Amino acid sequence: MSFEIVSQARCFGGTQFVYRHASRETGTPMRLSVFIPPQAEKGKVPVVWFLSGLTCTEENFTVKAGAQRAASELGLILVAPDTSPRGEGVPDDPEGAYDFGLGAGFYVDATEAPWAKNYRMYSYLSHELPTLIGRELPADMMRQGIMGHSMGGHGALILALRDPNRFRSVSAFAPIAAPSCCPWGRKALSGYLGPDEKDWRGYDACDLIDDGARLPELLVDQGTADSFLESQLKPQLLEAACSRAGIPLTLRMQEGYDHSYFFIATFIEDHLRWHAKRLSL
Amino acid sequence: MSFEIVSQARCFGGTQFVYRHASRETGTPMRLSVFIPPQAEKGKVPVVWFLSGLTCTEENFTVKAGAQRAASELGLILVAPDTSPRGEGVPDDPEGAYDFGLGAGFYVDATEAPWAKNYRMYSYLSHELPTLIGRELPADMMRQGIMGHSMGGHGALILALRDPNRFRSVSAFAPIAAPSCCPWGRKALSGYLGPDEKDWRGYDACDLIDDGARLPELLVDQGTADSFLESQLKPQLLEAACSRAGIPLTLRMQEGYDHSYFFIATFIEDHLRWHAKRLSL
Repeated sequence: MSFEIVSQARCFGGTQFVYRHASRETGTPMRLSVFIPPQAEKGKVPVVWFLSGLTCTEENFTVKAGAQRAASELGLILVAPDTSPRGEGVPDDPEGAYDFGLGAGFYVDATEAPWAKNYRMYSYLSHELPTLIGRELPADMMRQGIMGHSMGGHGALILALRDPNRFRSVSAFAPIAAPSCCPWGRKALSGYLGPDEKDWRGYDACDLIDDGARLPELLVDQGTADSFLESQLKPQLLEAACSRAGIPLTLRMQEGYDHSYFFIATFIEDHLRWHAKRLSL
Repeated sequence: MSFEIVSQARCFGGTQFVYRHASRETGTPMRLSVFIPPQAEKGKVPVVWFLSGLTCTEENFTVKAGAQRAASELGLILVAPDTSPRGEGVPDDPEGAYDFGLGAGFYVDATEAPWAKNYRMYSYLSHELPTLIGRELPADMMRQGIMGHSMGGHGALILALRDPNRFRSVSAFAPIAAPSCCPWGRKALSGYLGPDEKDWRGYDACDLIDDGARLPELLVDQGTADSFLESQLKPQLLEAACSRAGIPLTLRMQEGYDHSYFFIATFIEDHLRWHAKRLSL
């Protein structure tokens, strides 16, 4: 088995694992958390990916979102990867900023030095890790869904838009909807990909849609009291792009909710049921 | 208002607060987390206390147990206090041990120097904090329940046994059932109360029961894969004491579960429903 078990705990009748494995793409050991529901004892089950936001590891979603309860009922494997490579020799933001470098891989394949060697989260999540999961776990890789939060909502959107046959269901919590148009995204994309904004288009959900990428439908929850709503998240840009492209977007503005895991926990069951319905077709 | 709001977030239609206030008993600022369910907008609602285990603050239960979902449905205020005094001048274990001093107040009123001045968690939780909560929050203090985990399970048991009219419902997750009979408890009780074991009896659930204290009934969940089960927790001693005293104990040995919050999260809804049923009588 390529996954080394870091920890495991019984949870809602299934098992919550943390795995570690050597990644070819990032050149580092990578950790991920995987919840295996009880239904997997009898055969392969669908997989829902959760991509996390800035500063997170594989742990935040796993311990804070309360997702295992619904995943156990619905029979879904939950996979929560880390948000960047880590470890000796992996470069970090020179000033230790929270929004670049460690914990802030932005789900791209970097092309700029010194990031290009390790910061290959796009290839890691689009090819290397799903191949491993399909081989090692009781996962039906023909039935994958993806969701994410903030930077991870951006990640879920671009992974799904660039690989239209891979995911049957896509949703997001407070995603960075148009990274080319906000400070977090502009810092990350210019740092990892260089100053030419043409090179960013493949990692911007709204640009991808304008360039022809499509999703069958999309669910997004966004808190109205989210302090990053106007400056960084800009769901109205995603709404406009989906409208131009005819992508059915369900954008739910959730009154009074902020950017925290209390917001995610409140609506995670809705999202998992939404995914399960589309994954059981 | 005596509670200063440290943070607040919308959660399952209610609000998750962290408060800070100056405690007379501990002589320090104390933090606690409080979930207020939506039903409290229309009037006072019952209160369920959760006392946490070694090393915890008010945060662990609040972010890891997923209790707000059921509390919101059932209309329960959840109160999670810190596990010890903290701050400048508060003595800690000289070797920084995790099981004594900061994060390990053991819910007693210490009598030994240098602990006696600040380590007054029993009086803090039996009088000072409930008085404040009853005055400041939409809490029906005639309808209180209490539960806890590990050291906090011990705390819930002794608070309820010593004050039989205060709580209508009592439950525990993997409680330290007989602190006088395990290394964690013997270290804490001797350190805070001195070497005379007679002085410990008021803080040992099994001794309290043997000395005549009673509960109307008790629910305890205990994982069979809990690494502290045999050395520290000893539910069989509680079972025997309840049996001798005729206290109806529902002790559920949960196959394969460990001591973590994944165990608590799995069964918290059961406990909250159990409390709600008794608190709505």
